[in-house]
Amino acid sequence: MNERNLKVRISYCGTAYHGFQRQNNAITVQEVLEDRLSRLTDEQVKINGCSRTDAGVHAREYFFSFRTCSRIPCNNIIRGMNSLLPGDIAVSGCEEVTPDFHARYSCIGKEYRYHILNSPTRDPFLEKRVFHYPYKADADIMNSAAAQIVGTHDFSSFCGSLGVKEDPVRTVTVCNVSRRGDIITVIVRGDGFLYNMVRIIVGTLIYVNEGKIAHDSVKGIIESKDRSLAGVTAEACGLYLERVFYKE
Amino acid sequence: MNERNLKVRISYCGTAYHGFQRQNNAITVQEVLEDRLSRLTDEQVKINGCSRTDAGVHAREYFFSFRTCSRIPCNNIIRGMNSLLPGDIAVSGCEEVTPDFHARYSCIGKEYRYHILNSPTRDPFLEKRVFHYPYKADADIMNSAAAQIVGTHDFSSFCGSLGVKEDPVRTVTVCNVSRRGDIITVIVRGDGFLYNMVRIIVGTLIYVNEGKIAHDSVKGIIESKDRSLAGVTAEACGLYLERVFYKE
Repeated sequence: MNERNLKVRISYCGTAYHGFQRQNNAITVQEVLEDRLSRLTDEQVKINGCSRTDAGVHAREYFFSFRTCSRIPCNNIIRGMNSLLPGDIAVSGCEEVTPDFHARYSCIGKEYRYHILNSPTRDPFLEKRVFHYPYKADADIMNSAAAQIVGTHDFSSFCGSLGVKEDPVRTVTVCNVSRRGDIITVIVRGDGFLYNMVRIIVGTLIYVNEGKIAHDSVKGIIESKDRSLAGVTAEACGLYLERVFYKE
Repeated sequence: MNERNLKVRISYCGTAYHGFQRQNNAITVQEVLEDRLSRLTDEQVKINGCSRTDAGVHAREYFFSFRTCSRIPCNNIIRGMNSLLPGDIAVSGCEEVTPDFHARYSCIGKEYRYHILNSPTRDPFLEKRVFHYPYKADADIMNSAAAQIVGTHDFSSFCGSLGVKEDPVRTVTVCNVSRRGDIITVIVRGDGFLYNMVRIIVGTLIYVNEGKIAHDSVKGIIESKDRSLAGVTAEACGLYLERVFYKE
């Protein structure tokens, strides 16, 4: 019987998980998905996710792919998985794709959003879903700094120490900051991201807001390739993988 | 030293709590608040909440009052409480009020909202914060039924069995149903509510949607004073105490 290659679209609230990728001694989204898929298909399923995400990071859209000999129709995989999965993970799509498709290697771009609650009081309904920043914040200044991120650069200054072996050149096509009420949102879109890159970009924009980094010096920080000149790594809980792009 | 009477405004996500009111053997919002206030004021604090809420019910606005000999300024109570409280409860206001004020007995009205996620797939970010209803729903039909709730009535048909000793006459000034995208919201405002009244109203509106109750028969159900003619008690997780009204 022919193996099928399936592409599955999910979303998850990352609060309870130690990131996407399977680990020893810590519960991850991948482990939960593989466990439920194995039960559903009666096979030992191994999935390929489109991205690692850190502990506590969320995904509004995420894709994984896997090979299976099971003949279960795609719609029944969606329904079956949603009845087996915990409430903080949901399957919203499943389709058969060509054998060469791989959720990670076929991906041509991603969009992340980082949400900052900028209010004196925290919001009990946004606990662990936004970064609460109770101080004065100027989204326009942050946005003028964010604009310097756009382009094809060596982003070594914005790479966490666990990612330094990667090729550090990435193309960022969108990087902007806007405010809607008490929520400041940073949108970053690009062809790929280094380890912790979005969180370090956000930490740098917060330093710009606080005057610790001059708003026109971000270009120089990129050119320096010196991680110590950028800001802190912002908390994981405000970060969402928002969209994942594939060639079609 | 004179005792002060303080009115405190909070909000809370009710998922982790067994309702507002203190109970033996179950964690409640009242217990957590009294514990933190007692630590902050170095007194044995007893608070009066504006309402009981069921296990899992949320509050976007909630008031309690308490008497204290402590001289801590109101702003410091807000700040101090927010640093002591868990992230799912937040204090947003505190003011000194006249000695006769009582958060429950001085209350002249309340507004509840009930949120229904009406989509085929659940939303991981709304788990335990909305009632997920994946079937076809007609907000207009539900709204035409809801309109019959408005008025001063004996609401015995909409009272849970634990509340049958109360005076069953209440005045409902607003009862409507509207849709925004996948979210159907039921808004109910009145001078007071019987035990489980809003949840039974919502369960009845869902029965109307499903054709189990005719959309024009709600008035008759009220007149019958027969709980068995109304719908089921809708799940707690969709219910929010939204606003609390006092004479000013």
